[in-house]
Amino acid sequence: MRWLLMCLSMVSTMAVAESSPVAIALHGGAGTIERGKMSAELEATYRVFLEAAITDGHRQLAAGHPGLDVVVNVIQKMEDSPLFNAGKGAVYTWDGRHELDASIMHGQQLEAGAVAGVTTVKSPIALARTVMEDSPHVMLAAKGAEAFATAQGIESVDPDYFGTERRRKALEAYKADEYAGVEPEADYKFGTVGVVVLDKAGNLVAGTSTGGMTGKRWGRVGDSPIIGAGTYADNRSCAVSATGHGEFFIRHTVARDICARMQFGGASLHDATAEVVLKALVAAGGEGGVAAVDRAGNVALTFNTPGMYRASINATGVKTVGIFGDDE
Amino acid sequence: MRWLLMCLSMVSTMAVAESSPVAIALHGGAGTIERGKMSAELEATYRVFLEAAITDGHRQLAAGHPGLDVVVNVIQKMEDSPLFNAGKGAVYTWDGRHELDASIMHGQQLEAGAVAGVTTVKSPIALARTVMEDSPHVMLAAKGAEAFATAQGIESVDPDYFGTERRRKALEAYKADEYAGVEPEADYKFGTVGVVVLDKAGNLVAGTSTGGMTGKRWGRVGDSPIIGAGTYADNRSCAVSATGHGEFFIRHTVARDICARMQFGGASLHDATAEVVLKALVAAGGEGGVAAVDRAGNVALTFNTPGMYRASINATGVKTVGIFGDDE
Repeated sequence: MRWLLMCLSMVSTMAVAESSPVAIALHGGAGTIERGKMSAELEATYRVFLEAAITDGHRQLAAGHPGLDVVVNVIQKMEDSPLFNAGKGAVYTWDGRHELDASIMHGQQLEAGAVAGVTTVKSPIALARTVMEDSPHVMLAAKGAEAFATAQGIESVDPDYFGTERRRKALEAYKADEYAGVEPEADYKFGTVGVVVLDKAGNLVAGTSTGGMTGKRWGRVGDSPIIGAGTYADNRSCAVSATGHGEFFIRHTVARDICARMQFGGASLHDATAEVVLKALVAAGGEGGVAAVDRAGNVALTFNTPGMYRASINATGVKTVGIFGDDE
Repeated sequence: MRWLLMCLSMVSTMAVAESSPVAIALHGGAGTIERGKMSAELEATYRVFLEAAITDGHRQLAAGHPGLDVVVNVIQKMEDSPLFNAGKGAVYTWDGRHELDASIMHGQQLEAGAVAGVTTVKSPIALARTVMEDSPHVMLAAKGAEAFATAQGIESVDPDYFGTERRRKALEAYKADEYAGVEPEADYKFGTVGVVVLDKAGNLVAGTSTGGMTGKRWGRVGDSPIIGAGTYADNRSCAVSATGHGEFFIRHTVARDICARMQFGGASLHDATAEVVLKALVAAGGEGGVAAVDRAGNVALTFNTPGMYRASINATGVKTVGIFGDDE
C-alpha cells in the first residue's frame, strides 16, 4: 500500500512536471546602447553570447532541470564573461574596487537570498542561492557575507580577478567628469545581468547579479540585491529581474510592483511591465528595463533606454535576441 | 502679474496644507509580550512613554510640522530610550556588537533613504534621512555608510553607548540555547521601532529603526532598511512601518504589499493590513506586525503576535495606546 501511494505520488509529480510549458528571458544591462556607437565585431560578440545563453538555458528547462539551477547556471555564464557588469567585468567603485551584489528568488514558497557588497566571491549569484538555502537569513552584507561564504566553502578569488581595462577606463572617465563638475556620461549607472524562468514544475524563478554603478561610494547598495526592487518571483503572478538606475527601482519596488499589478489588479504581464517601466519610471526619470515571465510562459523584455542586451524564448518556442531598441 | 500668481500659488498651497487631517501611528516592536510576564512597573513605564510619544507627535503634526520632521523626531525619542531595540538599547550581534539599520520614505515623490549595519551612528533614522536628502543614493551599508555619516557631520558615539544589561543577558541566553541545540526563545528576533504619519500637507511618511535580531551573524540585513519590506510610503495609498521576523517581511515585501493592495486592488487600509499580516504572514509562519496610516487618516496597528507596543491618533482624534493583544 505504501509503495502504491509512493508510485501514485511519483506519477502525480511527473504529470505536474510535464504539464507546464517552459520559458526563459534574460537581460545583460540597459543603457545608451545605440547603433553606430558599437563596432560590428563587438555587436556580433554580444549576439553570439546572448543566443547561446538563451538556447542553453531553454534546453536545460526543456530537459526538466529545476528553474533554480537554470537561473544560476545562465547567470554564472554572464558573471564569468567580461562582456557584462557582473562577476568578471564588474565596474569599479570610486576607490577602484569591486563591490558585487546579487539576489535570487523562488516563486513557490517565496524563498529568497541576497548578498550586497561582496569583494572576493567569484559568483555572487551562487552565494545568494546559498544564503537562501543554507542560512536562516535572506540578506547578508559586506564582510559578514564573505565570512559566511568562506564557512560554506564558496569559491573566492583575488579581487583583481574582476578587473578589466574597459571598466577601469570607464572609472577614469567618470572621475574626470566628476572633478570637472560635469554630469558623467549616462552609462555609468547601468549594467547588471538577470535571468527569469518558468520551469517544467510550473515554478517561476528570478535572479540578478551586478557590479553596481561605476564610481559608487559609501557602500552604496543598488536595487539588484533588494528583494522586491531588482528581483521578485511569485508563482501566482510572475518573475522579474531588473536593470537600470537602481535608486529609482528601489523607490518604485519595480520587480514586486509588476507582480502586484498582475496579482491584485488583474493586469497582463505585458501591461504590468509597460505601466511600471514605460509610464511610472519614465515619469519619475528612472532609466532601465526588466526581463519578466509569467506563469503561462509569456515573456516581456521592456526598457525605456535606447537599448538593452536581451534574449528570450517563450512558452510557444518563439526566440528573440536583441541589443538596440529597434531590434525585433 | 507675477506677484499675483505667486500669491495665488501661496494661497493655494495654504489651502491644501490646511485641508488635510493629521494622523499618526507607531510601534515599538511585536513579540510574545504577555500579561503576567511583565511587571506592573515596567508596563506602566512603557505606557507612559507610548502615550507621551504619540501625543507629542500628534501635537507637532497639528501645528503644521512636516511629516518628515515628525517621523524623525518621534523615532529619535525611541532610539534614545533603552526600552526599545533601536539606538540605545539595541540588541547584540553574535559577536557582541551592535549593527543598526534604519529607513525612511516620503510618499509624495517616493523619495527614500536607508542605512544598514552602522555601528557608531547615534541616530540611524537621522542618517537615513540624510542619505535621502543629501546623497544620490537610497541605501548605504556598513563602513561606507559611516564614512558618509562622518562626511555629513552626523553625530557618532562610542559603540558602548548602545549597550544595556538587559540586551546583554538576552544575547547570553540566546547563545546558551544555540550551543545547547535548542530553539532560542521566540523574542530574540523582535524589536524595531517605527512611526507613520499623515501631515497637514497631505503627505504620508514612514520611518523604521532597529538593532535587528539578537545573535545575528554574517552581516545579516533584516527588513527594516529595505524599502518595500520594513518601510513604504506612497501618497496614493498608505504609509507602513513593519516589525517582526524580518526574513518573512522581506520575502512578502510587507510594507509595499499593503500599499499595493490598496492601490491596485482597491482594498481598505484595514483589509489590506489584515490580508498581509493576519493571513499571508500567518500562513507562511512570519510573526510580527505593522503600523499603517492612509491618506484619509485611518490608522491600523495590526499584529499576529501576542502583543505589540503601539499607539495611534487617527484623523478624528481617537487615541489608542496598547501593549498586549487584548488592549483596546
